[in-house]
Amino acid sequence: MGLSVVAISGGMDSCVTLAIASAGGPVGGLHVKYGQRTEERELRAFKAVADHYGVESRLVVALDYLKKIGGSSLTDESRPIPRTEPRSGGVPSTYVPFRNAHVLSVAVSWAEAMGADSVYVGSVEEDSSGYPDCRAEFYDAFGAAVEAGTRPDTHIRIVTPLISMSKAEIVKKGIELNVPFGLTWSCYEPPVDEKACGLCESCRLRIKGFKEAGARDPLSYAAMP
Amino acid sequence: MGLSVVAISGGMDSCVTLAIASAGGPVGGLHVKYGQRTEERELRAFKAVADHYGVESRLVVALDYLKKIGGSSLTDESRPIPRTEPRSGGVPSTYVPFRNAHVLSVAVSWAEAMGADSVYVGSVEEDSSGYPDCRAEFYDAFGAAVEAGTRPDTHIRIVTPLISMSKAEIVKKGIELNVPFGLTWSCYEPPVDEKACGLCESCRLRIKGFKEAGARDPLSYAAMP
Repeated sequence: MGLSVVAISGGMDSCVTLAIASAGGPVGGLHVKYGQRTEERELRAFKAVADHYGVESRLVVALDYLKKIGGSSLTDESRPIPRTEPRSGGVPSTYVPFRNAHVLSVAVSWAEAMGADSVYVGSVEEDSSGYPDCRAEFYDAFGAAVEAGTRPDTHIRIVTPLISMSKAEIVKKGIELNVPFGLTWSCYEPPVDEKACGLCESCRLRIKGFKEAGARDPLSYAAMP
Repeated sequence: MGLSVVAISGGMDSCVTLAIASAGGPVGGLHVKYGQRTEERELRAFKAVADHYGVESRLVVALDYLKKIGGSSLTDESRPIPRTEPRSGGVPSTYVPFRNAHVLSVAVSWAEAMGADSVYVGSVEEDSSGYPDCRAEFYDAFGAAVEAGTRPDTHIRIVTPLISMSKAEIVKKGIELNVPFGLTWSCYEPPVDEKACGLCESCRLRIKGFKEAGARDPLSYAAMP
């Protein structure tokens, strides 16, 4: 298999995706910062995970303008991070407008310049917060745009191995692949004493996933839902 | 008509596109720098053109990572800018891998955050250098990704009014709309004594367009093809 680019946020899903991709061949690790509250913590998780998998080729990109554009509680610290159940009312305020298109565009430009033939993204559609840019439909459409918008001899597949898995299935898959879940960070809030908040949608989804998988989450939480 | 976002490089095509869009309603002007050689000159053209059209809402974004990713003679100063005829051999070295997907992604994120309902881009397919991300096929596919990847109540049209026009038709359209062509910059090289090189593909296309339209180009050139 040829070279792949893997988008690695530093969360559990991207880490399982990296485990899957790196089992198949060499990978380049892409990390995107976009002015989110947990930028520093996520970058640390990216480095730890990339070190663990021996990823030598790395690209860290800062999309500071996404914070300037705003429209999301993840990048606007004057808006609270909701502590509600996932999917409790439409698209949540943590949605960053069209963010994943930026991540994919960087991944595809890098892949085309390096001659990689696939881009792996750990998005999850079903067991998620309901972001529109995490749906299979979006990735399919974007894949067609990649085929049309790159050189005639460039063919880059967008691979989303977790898209239709439940969070519990992802945990099980990760355990099967010896994924170092303790190195990852999923919480939308910066750590307090190295603990995740336990109450944001992202923590709730993760905690539920480990619980349903009957597995122990190595992270510590300040509270439990 | 609602609010539109217009991608304004500062070249003649984006200026004609701005004239068309601003005739229809209020616009936000987006300028993207990406480490290209003419970054400074293009930003100056953007400001002049935006001032001319009274664009108050502006967003200037630096995508420095596109230079880091490389793969193009526009961003890599160790590679010469070709001085050949357009379309003289496949996709030229001035192609920046998947660049327009980045421009569109920023425009769409900004449009969604502001509640704009369209994004205007001045890409030209026929009379062009043959970049894959300037083709109607790419914009159609990307439009489908925008519809799938944004909020259910967000509907942003990608509008490419020049996509199937010849360069001469664009010049004629611009003259009809009183476009200030003297404020624009098309050359791939930085100015020398405020003159464009006259020999790069972009200059050649522009010079040919004005010639075929029987019009005078207000810019000065160091050489003529």
